[in-house]
Amino acid sequence: MEILKNYIDGVWIPSTSKETIDIVNPATQEVLAKVPFGKGTQKDVDLAVASASKAYLEWSKVPVLKRVQVLYRLKTLMEENTEVLAEIITKESGKTYGESVGEIQRAIENIEVACGTPMLMAGDVIEDIATGVDEMMIRQPLGVAACITPFNFPSMIVFWFLPYAIATGNAFVVKPSEKVPMTMMKIFEFLDQLDIPKGLVSLVHGGKDSVDAILEHPSIKAVSFVGSTPVARYIYSKGTANGKRVQAQGGAKNPVVILPDADIEMSTKIIADSVYGCAGQRCLAASTIITVDDQKRQIKDALYETVKSRTTGYGLDREINMGPVITAASKARITGLIQKGIDEGAKVLLDGRNASIAGYEKGNFLNPTILENVALDKELIRTEIFGPVMSLISMKNIDDALKFVNSGNYGNMACLFTGSGANARRFRNEADAGNIGINIGVAAPMAQFPFSGWKDSFFGDLHGQGKHAIEFFTQTKVIIERWPNIWSRKF
Amino acid sequence: MEILKNYIDGVWIPSTSKETIDIVNPATQEVLAKVPFGKGTQKDVDLAVASASKAYLEWSKVPVLKRVQVLYRLKTLMEENTEVLAEIITKESGKTYGESVGEIQRAIENIEVACGTPMLMAGDVIEDIATGVDEMMIRQPLGVAACITPFNFPSMIVFWFLPYAIATGNAFVVKPSEKVPMTMMKIFEFLDQLDIPKGLVSLVHGGKDSVDAILEHPSIKAVSFVGSTPVARYIYSKGTANGKRVQAQGGAKNPVVILPDADIEMSTKIIADSVYGCAGQRCLAASTIITVDDQKRQIKDALYETVKSRTTGYGLDREINMGPVITAASKARITGLIQKGIDEGAKVLLDGRNASIAGYEKGNFLNPTILENVALDKELIRTEIFGPVMSLISMKNIDDALKFVNSGNYGNMACLFTGSGANARRFRNEADAGNIGINIGVAAPMAQFPFSGWKDSFFGDLHGQGKHAIEFFTQTKVIIERWPNIWSRKF
Amino acid sequence: MEILKNYIDGVWIPSTSKETIDIVNPATQEVLAKVPFGKGTQKDVDLAVASASKAYLEWSKVPVLKRVQVLYRLKTLMEENTEVLAEIITKESGKTYGESVGEIQRAIENIEVACGTPMLMAGDVIEDIATGVDEMMIRQPLGVAACITPFNFPSMIVFWFLPYAIATGNAFVVKPSEKVPMTMMKIFEFLDQLDIPKGLVSLVHGGKDSVDAILEHPSIKAVSFVGSTPVARYIYSKGTANGKRVQAQGGAKNPVVILPDADIEMSTKIIADSVYGCAGQRCLAASTIITVDDQKRQIKDALYETVKSRTTGYGLDREINMGPVITAASKARITGLIQKGIDEGAKVLLDGRNASIAGYEKGNFLNPTILENVALDKELIRTEIFGPVMSLISMKNIDDALKFVNSGNYGNMACLFTGSGANARRFRNEADAGNIGINIGVAAPMAQFPFSGWKDSFFGDLHGQGKHAIEFFTQTKVIIERWPNIWSRKF
Amino acid sequence: MEILKNYIDGVWIPSTSKETIDIVNPATQEVLAKVPFGKGTQKDVDLAVASASKAYLEWSKVPVLKRVQVLYRLKTLMEENTEVLAEIITKESGKTYGESVGEIQRAIENIEVACGTPMLMAGDVIEDIATGVDEMMIRQPLGVAACITPFNFPSMIVFWFLPYAIATGNAFVVKPSEKVPMTMMKIFEFLDQLDIPKGLVSLVHGGKDSVDAILEHPSIKAVSFVGSTPVARYIYSKGTANGKRVQAQGGAKNPVVILPDADIEMSTKIIADSVYGCAGQRCLAASTIITVDDQKRQIKDALYETVKSRTTGYGLDREINMGPVITAASKARITGLIQKGIDEGAKVLLDGRNASIAGYEKGNFLNPTILENVALDKELIRTEIFGPVMSLISMKNIDDALKFVNSGNYGNMACLFTGSGANARRFRNEADAGNIGINIGVAAPMAQFPFSGWKDSFFGDLHGQGKHAIEFFTQTKVIIERWPNIWSRKF
Repeated sequence: MEILKNYIDGVWIPSTSKETIDIVNPATQEVLAKVPFGKGTQKDVDLAVASASKAYLEWSKVPVLKRVQVLYRLKTLMEENTEVLAEIITKESGKTYGESVGEIQRAIENIEVACGTPMLMAGDVIEDIATGVDEMMIRQPLGVAACITPFNFPSMIVFWFLPYAIATGNAFVVKPSEKVPMTMMKIFEFLDQLDIPKGLVSLVHGGKDSVDAILEHPSIKAVSFVGSTPVARYIYSKGTANGKRVQAQGGAKNPVVILPDADIEMSTKIIADSVYGCAGQRCLAASTIITVDDQKRQIKDALYETVKSRTTGYGLDREINMGPVITAASKARITGLIQKGIDEGAKVLLDGRNASIAGYEKGNFLNPTILENVALDKELIRTEIFGPVMSLISMKNIDDALKFVNSGNYGNMACLFTGSGANARRFRNEADAGNIGINIGVAAPMAQFPFSGWKDSFFGDLHGQGKHAIEFFTQTKVIIERWPNIWSRKF
Repeated sequence: MEILKNYIDGVWIPSTSKETIDIVNPATQEVLAKVPFGKGTQKDVDLAVASASKAYLEWSKVPVLKRVQVLYRLKTLMEENTEVLAEIITKESGKTYGESVGEIQRAIENIEVACGTPMLMAGDVIEDIATGVDEMMIRQPLGVAACITPFNFPSMIVFWFLPYAIATGNAFVVKPSEKVPMTMMKIFEFLDQLDIPKGLVSLVHGGKDSVDAILEHPSIKAVSFVGSTPVARYIYSKGTANGKRVQAQGGAKNPVVILPDADIEMSTKIIADSVYGCAGQRCLAASTIITVDDQKRQIKDALYETVKSRTTGYGLDREINMGPVITAASKARITGLIQKGIDEGAKVLLDGRNASIAGYEKGNFLNPTILENVALDKELIRTEIFGPVMSLISMKNIDDALKFVNSGNYGNMACLFTGSGANARRFRNEADAGNIGINIGVAAPMAQFPFSGWKDSFFGDLHGQGKHAIEFFTQTKVIIERWPNIWSRKF
Repeated sequence: MEILKNYIDGVWIPSTSKETIDIVNPATQEVLAKVPFGKGTQKDVDLAVASASKAYLEWSKVPVLKRVQVLYRLKTLMEENTEVLAEIITKESGKTYGESVGEIQRAIENIEVACGTPMLMAGDVIEDIATGVDEMMIRQPLGVAACITPFNFPSMIVFWFLPYAIATGNAFVVKPSEKVPMTMMKIFEFLDQLDIPKGLVSLVHGGKDSVDAILEHPSIKAVSFVGSTPVARYIYSKGTANGKRVQAQGGAKNPVVILPDADIEMSTKIIADSVYGCAGQRCLAASTIITVDDQKRQIKDALYETVKSRTTGYGLDREINMGPVITAASKARITGLIQKGIDEGAKVLLDGRNASIAGYEKGNFLNPTILENVALDKELIRTEIFGPVMSLISMKNIDDALKFVNSGNYGNMACLFTGSGANARRFRNEADAGNIGINIGVAAPMAQFPFSGWKDSFFGDLHGQGKHAIEFFTQTKVIIERWPNIWSRKF
Repeated sequence: MEILKNYIDGVWIPSTSKETIDIVNPATQEVLAKVPFGKGTQKDVDLAVASASKAYLEWSKVPVLKRVQVLYRLKTLMEENTEVLAEIITKESGKTYGESVGEIQRAIENIEVACGTPMLMAGDVIEDIATGVDEMMIRQPLGVAACITPFNFPSMIVFWFLPYAIATGNAFVVKPSEKVPMTMMKIFEFLDQLDIPKGLVSLVHGGKDSVDAILEHPSIKAVSFVGSTPVARYIYSKGTANGKRVQAQGGAKNPVVILPDADIEMSTKIIADSVYGCAGQRCLAASTIITVDDQKRQIKDALYETVKSRTTGYGLDREINMGPVITAASKARITGLIQKGIDEGAKVLLDGRNASIAGYEKGNFLNPTILENVALDKELIRTEIFGPVMSLISMKNIDDALKFVNSGNYGNMACLFTGSGANARRFRNEADAGNIGINIGVAAPMAQFPFSGWKDSFFGDLHGQGKHAIEFFTQTKVIIERWPNIWSRKF
């Protein structure tokens, strides 16, 4: 069985750690490869950073117009290899092939935005801020930066950071999820073809040990993280205690409000896609669906019909709508949460727990679940489930719905389905979440915009993507120059 | 003796703490007043935040065009009261009257920039990001924010934050230095005249206990700090561990390189102003002066002549150039550092330790000190002195000078004096500091620009002043709207 | 009878022209003063420009941070003198006192935005655009600029230009409407109090002769105009033929669509304010009201009730809703248009032609007129009326309404009243006008935004107000510097 | 002999004009092809605009993120075909192969910047500009735009406009110089491969008749022009008289000042490249070289040595430094100007008039000419020569040099060679030209920056390239929306 290598100093080398864990196809339970793990991986981080530090010195001196040329090439490579990449994503993460293609597209869009770095990182200049004195601000890179990414988007999330980091002149270390590291292996084959200094980008495998090595390494100046809230807190707290800049994105529990004046058919389809897409394993998955007032019955029926017709199966099978969840443990956790909800009074509209997919009987499959009348103060409503479970609740009016939306700990997303401009406006003004959807089920900001988690969904101030990413991976340098006119008369 | 009150919920009220410490005029040792201190002050923070939280709810709903109106008024109040304010600053901090007026001017300039908040906090919008889908980003306030400020600029530093915080819709809590709280008392008299909700701005006194209360309070979303590096680390680490955004500015050790092609007379005057202005108690005070090559003797002589002619005395005496340092303890620490330098081989060009000012014999006065041949690896060169001490060293060429400049732990400022465009360009490109001066002695960014510390001089990513301050005090909210054309045909 | 003086070279001086015309109070027909006119005024322009050219040389060298200080002062002067200014506006233009106060407020808001010029005119800088080469763009002033303004907003329109022009370092010449020049006389009393070089701002009176002198003067680099479309074309064509930059805003014919799902009561009140405010003499006055579908009757009735209750009278009488139109000739033209419409088949719902105001029998008063069933291809629908006349027409659906909206020659404003987010979105996406109102009757951009006429409502590319004004009054200068590192090693 | 076709409505079709003129290789006098000409070409413009108008309707509805995808493809096509394209450029324009490759690179850089249009054309939004009212500005395309380009950069100049025009959603018509239309023929082969509506881009040939047709066509909303000043004035005046936006770049006469403290060797090489590159046929060619003070002799000698060693010949011969001028008429005009200069007292340091290139005896070759002591008020100094002629003059000091620099009618470029930061600063602050070079010979703004001509070198306000191009090809639309909260409570 293949043990994945790290990509350090421009070459593929085995980890210094002998310990490994299995990478398992969640639909088939097939072991796809083994990935380095444990204490020994800390040494890998050291090696990567040592090489990155050297590469940084060279790369930061390459003009930004030249630096972005490699991103144009990377875009082409990603486009040309979308199919092979999508298959890997599906194999190791379980999501459907279409979902895999979709996340690659989002990755590419970030490359495109980062191609605009020459203009995005431009500084400001004010001539004659005082007589004979000019002042300007320029942005310079930080040095070595790193990201630590989760299992649910094996390709995309790295691209919220990496293209911006290297376009602005930094070296970059990627520590992918140990559950889905093979996608990054393939992407680093593309990175390997770019005309960049060896060591500029590194891939290091591992789990908590690699993470800690990153957080403690004095030469890593910035850490980007996406994962659960407890780990985000840990990363933010530990990274900053080591003096770094940190942007740490955590979990979510995304409420969706559907008003009686919404287009019911379109809305319920979009909502179902949001709840069950990627088997609910998205930080922007809708989770709690709030109906308001008198059309509750109609919306419930429409949701039920839409959801019932969704098919579950192996992601590489192009016909299916939903793949398995990532691990057996995850499946167990989700079924446990469903049972707990039922025990606490929820009513089961659709029970997805007994999924059995012919040919993939060992897969971590769950069918879509809809629960009704869930108690508002209980775990099912308050916790991130990260599985294909919809909790359907009802509120008297939009005031109560907004109050409920704003009562949670998370602030990743809130969506409203309506035909009313006034309700839309009020919701976008008042909902306490950083990503707002109006008649949108997955309000994922395009690459031009910051991926704006709020509250416990984000720790830090500058987000991934767009201008925020440019700002995060650079430090401002202000220059004040005095050149008295009198000096110019010397000839 | 007056015990200073807090300004909470729109009124002046006594601290819940019975403990106090003295506010002492560093030139006369007169006790000016007493300031609350100790454990009991934590309750004050709670009261302030409770009121601030309410005020925020009201204020954040006031349109930004109206919010900034109070800043225009504040600018006028500060201008009309510059004299009385400058006297207070001089009395409690020791700096000269002219220096006091100067820092008030810098405070006002930040108010001016914050008056432009309606435009500065504007968001981005892209129409038709996909067919029928629009995406926009807006900035909304955080809630309650706080700043913790040092003794050396009793008025100015608060204004790197406060005008931006309230212009963007936040409530704001100020915890000034317990050594110089009277300046803020006066400024809050002006704030009290503004048409803002009670509780929107609060003044709480105290020391470490207040600071900890701020860092731990769950309703404070953002903390701005300026002080020494160890405390900045503490603030950054503890504030972030509590989930907040933090910008923490630390100490400095600012090198200045003077090249043979500089205008010697102008340069040495500027450098002396930088080293001895505010008695060296500025985070942008020049500290180590590096001459290069053959004109060392000439520069040394010119510096000596310039410095020798500077006069020390009570800051309210308009003729003097330099006031006392802040405390007797500070004076003792500085004289100790000088002695240590001498013991380690430094040569004394000018010894300022035996200052005695007629009429102010008890004041914490030091005259300007110049040390030569200081060992590069010793404390005098590596530590922030925060006193009127110049260390004069010499390097072979600009390469060595830059290497030395970049070898320190701090990165607040680096300056170059030269007539050469190429040397200036190289220095601004290569010097590892966030504020660069070319023929400038105190490279303090104007309010339009971020006050950009690097390395151990700053922890965080967004600085005070200008656009960074706007970004720090707001959170981005991305809204994606789908309004299918088909829906519009219903009439 | 007073003959108005010009303000040139910092003093009030009589025109070189002996010819004058009367300034008449449109409510009382009282002659308020006489204003210079005729060929002789061309000399006045020469004098003003000569002084302005000198003032420019001095002013452009004053740092922008200092330049904007006079705008803070101007804001205060305008605020403190709002009442006296509003009375003058009402006296010479006829609008109500409340409308006069409103336009002063809009003027002040432009001053506020221009106070932010230090940041708004900042340039861009890219370090190391090639190795050792830096590139930056800065904005520098043009020299002398001028504006030619209409009678309907005696104060406001000048402020779309003047504050930006002088904040960016230009000198500025104002040629107000000969019908309402007294407002500018008062405002120049405020300008006279500012700390600016004499000649920096000038006030020259006159009509077409002054205008031509401005358009032909080689030292005037930029001309801003607001008026009717034929004159705008003339200004644009002639100014550019003389090599200048020109922004020329013309007339309008603003359609308003009201959908059945709008809030009828609020909408009809807002629409009435738009149609009849300033007696319809606004370039953003609603003119043609389009109802859609089955609620036509209800909307018509509501409009009728709302309009009927509006009172006409002398603008200084605080109770009235509408003042007179500007001249007797204007009144005659409007009544003629109404009659023509009737002759061509329009039905009169409300006939405002026989207005007689007790005590002001000679005033140019018209009461609100509502016409129905106006032929779509006739003058009443195609021409700007610039009087208190509403044409009410009906369309089958929003498609037809949009087609009609986009069929006109003008593109100043289009408004929609609706409750539907989808209709609002479609309208803002598809309506061919530069200022769009959704549930807004007068979609006047705030000072932060460009006043964006389209089609025959504007000639040029950069509009008044905000960033466009900054760009219009400055020219970009790109600087490319090469400072090879090798040169820096000479010491 | 081939007669070039137009590219209209997505296909290559013959001109409606039967008239043609020859395209001649200036080095060989070989007729390369024939190009349509005369009155009949006006019909071609009509056809192109008719198709463009349709294409616009479709293209403007394609989301900007999709629109820019064709630019990524175009970049790749231009890169892959650089060699074949460079040969065509050299054949029809005469410039060296290296110069041809260089201009293609600059064209590609504009494509790159235009790839960032999704972010560059983003609008501004301010939430709650008044309570319950939001305001935003978006940018929408104009419709059909056109460019008219000169012979000296057959590929590059079109790219200052075209990529931005189509990225922002417009259709675009190209009218290349009738002297060098074959380069555009090849580039339209690439454009033909893009996934765009037929008619979106058109190529129409011809001379003044096509130009007039463009200027008069009511459906063309914007015209971009680069050429001589008299024609630029004509285009600006006539285009605006027809209500269009126009940006018209004219001629130049670029002074270069070289100070005694410059690096003589490097400076003289750079200056020679600037004067003689493209045989002096560049709007940024240095023309008048001003030495200051005592090193005049040394600079003169160095220039002489550098220039003397330059070789002239056929551009496809990779060894030569300079090709022929564009036509025999042009050669005659240049030699006439040289003779006139001599007659008026200029001294000939190097006479390039008798160039004879073996194998290309009929070519329009001139060798480098250096004239000295040219009278400052005569044609040679005041007129654009557009040929390989350097006028060397001398000034007493930098004051006089700046006065001379600012005395000309043109303002395209001014350069300074110096080692002094103060002189550089003064020059960039005071020189009246839109493109300033410091130790740079051809201060051509990179694509991120506006190509900023001043004075008679430019008519209009928004330039080509970068953000200015985005602004030029879009019109701002301001939307004000009121959605009262009260409306949102209806459920």
